Amino acid sequence: MKYRISANVIRRLPRYLRRMTMLERQNVEKVSSTELGERMGLTASQIRQDFNCFGGFGQQGYGYNVKQLREDIGGILGLEDTLTAIVIGAGNLGRALIANFHFPACGFQLAAAFDTDPALIGTEMNGTPVLDGDKLDIYLEENRVDVAVLTMPKGYAASVANLLCRHGVRGIWNFTGTDIDADLGGTVVEDVHLSDSLLTLGYYLRGKGEQ
Amino acid sequence: MKYRISANVIRRLPRYLRRMTMLERQNVEKVSSTELGERMGLTASQIRQDFNCFGGFGQQGYGYNVKQLREDIGGILGLEDTLTAIVIGAGNLGRALIANFHFPACGFQLAAAFDTDPALIGTEMNGTPVLDGDKLDIYLEENRVDVAVLTMPKGYAASVANLLCRHGVRGIWNFTGTDIDADLGGTVVEDVHLSDSLLTLGYYLRGKGEQ
Repeated sequence: MKYRISANVIRRLPRYLRRMTMLERQNVEKVSSTELGERMGLTASQIRQDFNCFGGFGQQGYGYNVKQLREDIGGILGLEDTLTAIVIGAGNLGRALIANFHFPACGFQLAAAFDTDPALIGTEMNGTPVLDGDKLDIYLEENRVDVAVLTMPKGYAASVANLLCRHGVRGIWNFTGTDIDADLGGTVVEDVHLSDSLLTLGYYLRGKGEQ
Repeated sequence: MKYRISANVIRRLPRYLRRMTMLERQNVEKVSSTELGERMGLTASQIRQDFNCFGGFGQQGYGYNVKQLREDIGGILGLEDTLTAIVIGAGNLGRALIANFHFPACGFQLAAAFDTDPALIGTEMNGTPVLDGDKLDIYLEENRVDVAVLTMPKGYAASVANLLCRHGVRGIWNFTGTDIDADLGGTVVEDVHLSDSLLTLGYYLRGKGEQ
């Protein structure tokens, strides 16, 4: 179980988790790889291959137990091990995440937000304190932060990322739309490129592909 | 060229486009599938296979012409054929997209935003008029809309999606975090699940995988 699992398989785990949560809510108890494949646009064999990377999860022919599978996948994703996140940039996008994104469902606790706007510093958003962005380094010295969510203007991305890496922040969830050009050391960057999603939608609408 | 191309290949096209745009900005003229693969975490053979779906783009051994490839991929994605989008819900997330997301770079023109907040109706955000959400149906009768961006609370997703489909909107870019349970007809829904991205990052941070 300690061999390297392909990034494509890892990226499908959250989709499986969502699907299982949905099936559980619909009181579905068992699901076969064929049914699951049809609902998710994957082949049954692909799904079985993916699950085999983690030792199986069920006996072929009997279907998967939905609740068990949801728990197993949540365990692989490490949801029971809560990590700490901060949001850097409390503008529209930062606010949208603070107000609406359910960090605990992803195994994260949102500890603080940072901004340099004096009108925001010292306020709370949905229970999260907004702190002075110019004092981020002091905060990082005194508090453990696993992931920083970058929602400030892209011009600051490189310098903030450098600061984060110097202070041992291990993960960056990057919404700035720019590639982070910094000495990252072991820090993992997850870029969110919303344009990829709209470009794909546009491709299908322009009639060049069939959905 | 009219055969069905796999969704996975299509989903990589925006990534190739981004990479080519970046290389062009760095004044790189030629790139081999090996170099490209290293930068993108794909194998050279995967890249050649992907490009072969569209007829090739270059001669093996000579590398790809960066500018030409960027233009070819943009052409496949249909960027020269501008589609019309509206944003439904001008809260934090809607505002973030209106203010910061570059719709034209994806081949879209943002025509209007809709909200039901009287304080917002009649205002402009970054040049985009905010119109009365209760009059969306009238707007759809009088204007061609290709894609609706759903950034309103998830409780409205199904009813708004039904309205959109009835009026022939062909694409929905869904940020509500909920699956749209509506009679979609031929309407294509592209769901944005930000949690998938954070869950993947969390997986790597928890040391269960190596990046």
